[in-house]
Amino acid sequence: MFAAPGMSTTYGLHRALLLNGAGTATMFLDQRRSWGEIGERVARFAAAILELGVARGDRVGVLMLNQDRYLELYLAIAWAGAVIVPLNIRWSVIENEDALRDCRPKLLVVDLAFAEMGVELSNRIDGLALIYADDPPAAALPPGTLNYEALIAATEPVEDARAAETDLAGIFYTGGTTGRSKGVMLSHRNLMSNARNAAGEWGRIDNPVYLHAAPMFHLADAGAMYGHLITGAAHAVIRNFSADAVAEAIDMFKVTDTLLVPTMIQMVADNPGLERYDVSSLRRINYGASPMSEAVLDRAMARLPGVEFLQSYGMTELSPIACFLPWKDHIGEARAKGRHRSGGRPTTGVEVRIVDTLDTPLPVGEIGEIVARGDTVMMGYWERPEETAKAVIDGWMHTGDAGYRDADGYFYVVDRLKDMIISGGENIYSVEVERCLAQHPAVAQCAVFGIPDPRWGEAVHATVMKKSGTEVTADELITFCKDRIAGYKCPRSVTIQAELLPMSGAGKILKREMRKPYWMETSRGVN
Amino acid sequence: MFAAPGMSTTYGLHRALLLNGAGTATMFLDQRRSWGEIGERVARFAAAILELGVARGDRVGVLMLNQDRYLELYLAIAWAGAVIVPLNIRWSVIENEDALRDCRPKLLVVDLAFAEMGVELSNRIDGLALIYADDPPAAALPPGTLNYEALIAATEPVEDARAAETDLAGIFYTGGTTGRSKGVMLSHRNLMSNARNAAGEWGRIDNPVYLHAAPMFHLADAGAMYGHLITGAAHAVIRNFSADAVAEAIDMFKVTDTLLVPTMIQMVADNPGLERYDVSSLRRINYGASPMSEAVLDRAMARLPGVEFLQSYGMTELSPIACFLPWKDHIGEARAKGRHRSGGRPTTGVEVRIVDTLDTPLPVGEIGEIVARGDTVMMGYWERPEETAKAVIDGWMHTGDAGYRDADGYFYVVDRLKDMIISGGENIYSVEVERCLAQHPAVAQCAVFGIPDPRWGEAVHATVMKKSGTEVTADELITFCKDRIAGYKCPRSVTIQAELLPMSGAGKILKREMRKPYWMETSRGVN
Repeated sequence: MFAAPGMSTTYGLHRALLLNGAGTATMFLDQRRSWGEIGERVARFAAAILELGVARGDRVGVLMLNQDRYLELYLAIAWAGAVIVPLNIRWSVIENEDALRDCRPKLLVVDLAFAEMGVELSNRIDGLALIYADDPPAAALPPGTLNYEALIAATEPVEDARAAETDLAGIFYTGGTTGRSKGVMLSHRNLMSNARNAAGEWGRIDNPVYLHAAPMFHLADAGAMYGHLITGAAHAVIRNFSADAVAEAIDMFKVTDTLLVPTMIQMVADNPGLERYDVSSLRRINYGASPMSEAVLDRAMARLPGVEFLQSYGMTELSPIACFLPWKDHIGEARAKGRHRSGGRPTTGVEVRIVDTLDTPLPVGEIGEIVARGDTVMMGYWERPEETAKAVIDGWMHTGDAGYRDADGYFYVVDRLKDMIISGGENIYSVEVERCLAQHPAVAQCAVFGIPDPRWGEAVHATVMKKSGTEVTADELITFCKDRIAGYKCPRSVTIQAELLPMSGAGKILKREMRKPYWMETSRGVN
Repeated sequence: MFAAPGMSTTYGLHRALLLNGAGTATMFLDQRRSWGEIGERVARFAAAILELGVARGDRVGVLMLNQDRYLELYLAIAWAGAVIVPLNIRWSVIENEDALRDCRPKLLVVDLAFAEMGVELSNRIDGLALIYADDPPAAALPPGTLNYEALIAATEPVEDARAAETDLAGIFYTGGTTGRSKGVMLSHRNLMSNARNAAGEWGRIDNPVYLHAAPMFHLADAGAMYGHLITGAAHAVIRNFSADAVAEAIDMFKVTDTLLVPTMIQMVADNPGLERYDVSSLRRINYGASPMSEAVLDRAMARLPGVEFLQSYGMTELSPIACFLPWKDHIGEARAKGRHRSGGRPTTGVEVRIVDTLDTPLPVGEIGEIVARGDTVMMGYWERPEETAKAVIDGWMHTGDAGYRDADGYFYVVDRLKDMIISGGENIYSVEVERCLAQHPAVAQCAVFGIPDPRWGEAVHATVMKKSGTEVTADELITFCKDRIAGYKCPRSVTIQAELLPMSGAGKILKREMRKPYWMETSRGVN
């Protein structure tokens, strides 16, 4: 019997080449490329890395701000049958070194912004060759550094390696509860199934243009990219998010679709200069990481009339989407019912349910852990079979989110079981920040948790018990963290006290007790 | 590493139970059932057939006109882990007997219309038990015949067997070029991938209601059913197609979506009584089997304003859809370019190309065979590995259609390589009709082919050389066929001659030569 082959993540490129070879593929600064050109460049860069010794299944790291070549890299690395490892642009050298030592890529691709860090990483890690992929010359690069454009120019295109759908396509690092980040392994099928689900939820519009405004290393944007690849959209790219850059890009590139986190939506909507741009082409904003507050939704609707907002709820381990909340649930009767506060309903290829600690499904209204099953569940954590086995049980990915569902199948997230903070769309594991603070000589005890922040959703807060006989300030502790972990993970505020932190009889710090006063006034963080 | 499980065809039911348990699932005559009720009935009927000895992978035949229980059967047989075999309601006893002997089901489910044929089949085939699934009592049934409702009432529900996605879900019989019908084996994944593709092309509308107007045994309607199961639509059902029944059902059930072949669309649009019904709820008609003629498209647009037409091109072996032609390609500039005459562009999970006889891909504009690849390609023909190997080469399903593609990736069907006639949406293999005619004592030679028909697209025509010394009329030959093969396959017209048919040097009848004069005036059948 014949087993039908599934899709590699290059499928969207093949489809675009067939349907729309002369059409616009990417728009970045003054650069426009057609699908025909992208196809040629992808096949050449794939050939180049194969010649450099990358074999099927080998990893290739990418550490870049957004640009059009990032899209090419996602496609070319898959075209070569290799595995992309998009690195977090906010991470410190140490954090990125950890990830690279973990998954051992042969190549690391960097842009101008990360040329210096790239050199540092390639010095620290034996056998890690560097490719520079940007337009301005980078002073920091040692002679002999490989150049992306030179490689493309010097290499003949190869055929698509046509990775099997069960092959590993990418490793996406997430913060880990143990303090070390874990590599989420996603197969071609994982990513393409998510793309099909998302494309189905979006529906079809004429001449879609997707704007990469969120960082392209992040699976939120990459997931949208795969979806828009199969619907045949053009890809507009801005280097970095800013409220002005988004508005300008929408105007210049006639953007129809983008993906932002609520913090970004707020900044776009609150931009006093928004009226300087024609943003009337924009039709849909897909947002994630958290629901939008009433205030942000109202302001965004007022400032961006005609734009439909669509929420997706998920996590990297789910490729990443489990639920969608369509536009109609943000307005009218549905809003009156509070549906805009939910994470939505399971998308068309995923099962979602609420279970208790014994994995028994719970009925409507009861709070338990949100678990999800389907062909978008990750292959596992890279070289961490025990953590994989803990996360994926009988096919169900355990999200670590506490929530409930209503009678109509809407899921509501009420808390996180994992000790995690979401600030500006980034996941921050408290334990990692606590481990850093604990290294300071004046810190006796500490607890890190999220507190409400009008701009970032949550802000990282630390409460510290200082050792007797020592003196330390909040600023000193924040600076101490900034030297060791990514800036976005560092506490924004620190409370320092001489007394012990509140603890349970078993000696566990009662973080929930400590969080409560900060969250009394808000609708989230219900315990 | 963890291999994410795919979906069984019961997925849509689980999703509906979660999202919309109290919502309407089926509407048929005066009967309304909620998803909760359907879930209960499905789990009970699955239990019943398991108790009757149906094991995982066993086949269950269904021979019924449309009704709400047909939807339950698709779901319940999958729920039991068994394989549905929907039989063609237009086939003769002999043809259905052939199919049943081929795939050897243990059970056959029939309705009132097929009670008599069911008894005949169960008499002819040892070990084939009969289940009657209809409301009026059927006089023809022998005592002891099993009753669908009695089985449901007497059995406790079981858990879903959760078929693996690679398990066989259904066998769909198609006419065979060899004159014997072949069982197309479709896996759960085949059907669910097609459902995801289709649901993506349709997009989401509020409160969808799908009308089963085409026969539910046919994969065109069943494919739409699986798609609408994952979008959460309600299912309205009419027993048989008629122009009046469709209009009445749209009015009564507030239908938003249906699937018809162009012949049916024409009948609905030309119905002089259409104005008696309120059909304003109807938003989309998905049609297939062939493009719509200019005249039918114009009349349909005029009589059904506000309805969008969407074509799908495919075949049973592709689960069934390869290409979609959206509404926008039926109007305006696209129509001026003639796009409404194409079969559309590859859907988001399928690759389509044109190849020559050596399977080399052909460039834009060149005519060759249309082949398609993806996870919707069938598992094969039931117990026919050689025919499977001929049809599926390197993953590519060879459609037997000749066509070309344009620079924008639109595929145009220009001819059928297989000697097949499509009349009123049904595939008729000429060889089967020729084999029947050849058994008549007066027939020396015959050729059967399609000729243009304003109502059915094509009509079956036979040209016969009579044996010298015999006399025979067209009516006699048509009656002869009607006694032996399904009515829709029988010639509508017969030309009788004393001379040899035109033949090639190798002695092959030049059917193309014979077809040509009939097709001179039309745009199809270009050679």
